[in-house]
Amino acid sequence: MPRWNTVAIVGVGLIGGSIGLALRARGLAGRVIGVGRNAESLRKALEAKAVSETTLHGDEAFRAADLIVYATPVDHIARAISQSANDFAPAALVTDAGSTKAEMVRQLEKLLPPDVRFIGSHPLAGGEKAGVEHASSDLFEGRVSIVTPTERTTEVVTREACEFWELLGSRAVTMDPEEHDEAVAAISHLPHLVASAIAASTPEERLGLAAGGWRDTTRIAAGDAELWTQILLANRANVLKSLERFEKTVSEFKAAIENRDSAALKRLLAEAKRIRDAVGS
Amino acid sequence: MPRWNTVAIVGVGLIGGSIGLALRARGLAGRVIGVGRNAESLRKALEAKAVSETTLHGDEAFRAADLIVYATPVDHIARAISQSANDFAPAALVTDAGSTKAEMVRQLEKLLPPDVRFIGSHPLAGGEKAGVEHASSDLFEGRVSIVTPTERTTEVVTREACEFWELLGSRAVTMDPEEHDEAVAAISHLPHLVASAIAASTPEERLGLAAGGWRDTTRIAAGDAELWTQILLANRANVLKSLERFEKTVSEFKAAIENRDSAALKRLLAEAKRIRDAVGS
Repeated sequence: MPRWNTVAIVGVGLIGGSIGLALRARGLAGRVIGVGRNAESLRKALEAKAVSETTLHGDEAFRAADLIVYATPVDHIARAISQSANDFAPAALVTDAGSTKAEMVRQLEKLLPPDVRFIGSHPLAGGEKAGVEHASSDLFEGRVSIVTPTERTTEVVTREACEFWELLGSRAVTMDPEEHDEAVAAISHLPHLVASAIAASTPEERLGLAAGGWRDTTRIAAGDAELWTQILLANRANVLKSLERFEKTVSEFKAAIENRDSAALKRLLAEAKRIRDAVGS
Repeated sequence: MPRWNTVAIVGVGLIGGSIGLALRARGLAGRVIGVGRNAESLRKALEAKAVSETTLHGDEAFRAADLIVYATPVDHIARAISQSANDFAPAALVTDAGSTKAEMVRQLEKLLPPDVRFIGSHPLAGGEKAGVEHASSDLFEGRVSIVTPTERTTEVVTREACEFWELLGSRAVTMDPEEHDEAVAAISHLPHLVASAIAASTPEERLGLAAGGWRDTTRIAAGDAELWTQILLANRANVLKSLERFEKTVSEFKAAIENRDSAALKRLLAEAKRIRDAVGS
């Protein structure tokens, strides 16, 4: 018997599609219903076998589902969930895959009836290419998924959400929504901003010389501009805080180079290497 | 018959060792003599079959060689070449693999007897791991090697150096030493500095969440700190110029985020994506 009878996935792009593929590949769900507003996207999700059926209107799917996952752009999630809250089955677990958590989760705490079993999630997985055509059943394998309970979340809901992400192959960790946003600003949003700034500031006549270093360092700059605009603005305060810390470090490098201070420069490079080496390839 | 009877490689680390392995794998050289000051490094190069023989004293090797390649740290090359110039066979091509060119090449133009057939080179290849134990015969395949003739270089010398790097599997491009240094500051040295600054400014308690984006963006920060101290200082003026351009772009991102200007932010991200997409994976 599958772990969930009916799963509704709202938004079947790269992440939603990969959740569907993973659920189906691992035999975890009876029905996987793709919910969306764009008939063409839904058709593609069905074609990719990421879902077993699709609908433009969530209400029936929500009443049937014992697991509902929102994988739509992060600035739509809170409103979408609160608007559909009356349709959710009482026992259903409701979660999402949005890249920022504090604003959305705190907003939903105010909007949702207390019996809705919602908890925020964020799988640290993705890729430069958007769309269900790039979805993959192993997208979450070996990755970390962050689950963000609050003081109002019950333990059983937290446990169930962690179980969900672990059954998809990732390692679940929990932290509160505010800590999540601070952590991902440093580990994901700042690198994205900086990679984009390197790419954007490279003189185009030099691109023919781009080797492994430039390619690695700028790879994530190929991400979707619309999506990343939302993410960086949704996590504005934390991104600016991380950026400040980064700029301080850059100015230390700059001073060492300006002053031809090879000891200071080597110390900075060695510190960077120590931290990078600690993570591994 | 191999293309070169005797090749002397001065410095048999990652780059020198890979040159030796590539020459031997492709049957391009009769003898490949590793020249160095450290007996242990030479022993390792011999063991790795990167060279067919080794010596601590270059003089005899230089007299025998029809191709001499310096792959030592960039700040040693000019002095080492000028000190051995009298030993080079008149027909020998002498080149190097140093990461910066202008200072070294211009210095050698003053120091070398006019009959020495020297030309600067820089293969855009490498890796985070130093040492002959990480050398590989295909290190240059599909890469770009820059050859830096000056107004005093003959065409036949330029052609021979280009032929050398192409026979190792890379694509040779020529530019003058000053243009080289400006280009690599933008495409290689700045990304290294920035990758290091991201790594060094990441709070260590967040490293457990590092996913593909952080890993890609900081990968080159694992490079050798001593080597990169030399490179960044040797190309100081160009690195600072690239850094200024980068900082200007970062401050545009910062302003867009501070002002919640999603149109400006999206424009910046889209421009970065356009440039990154032009290069490919």
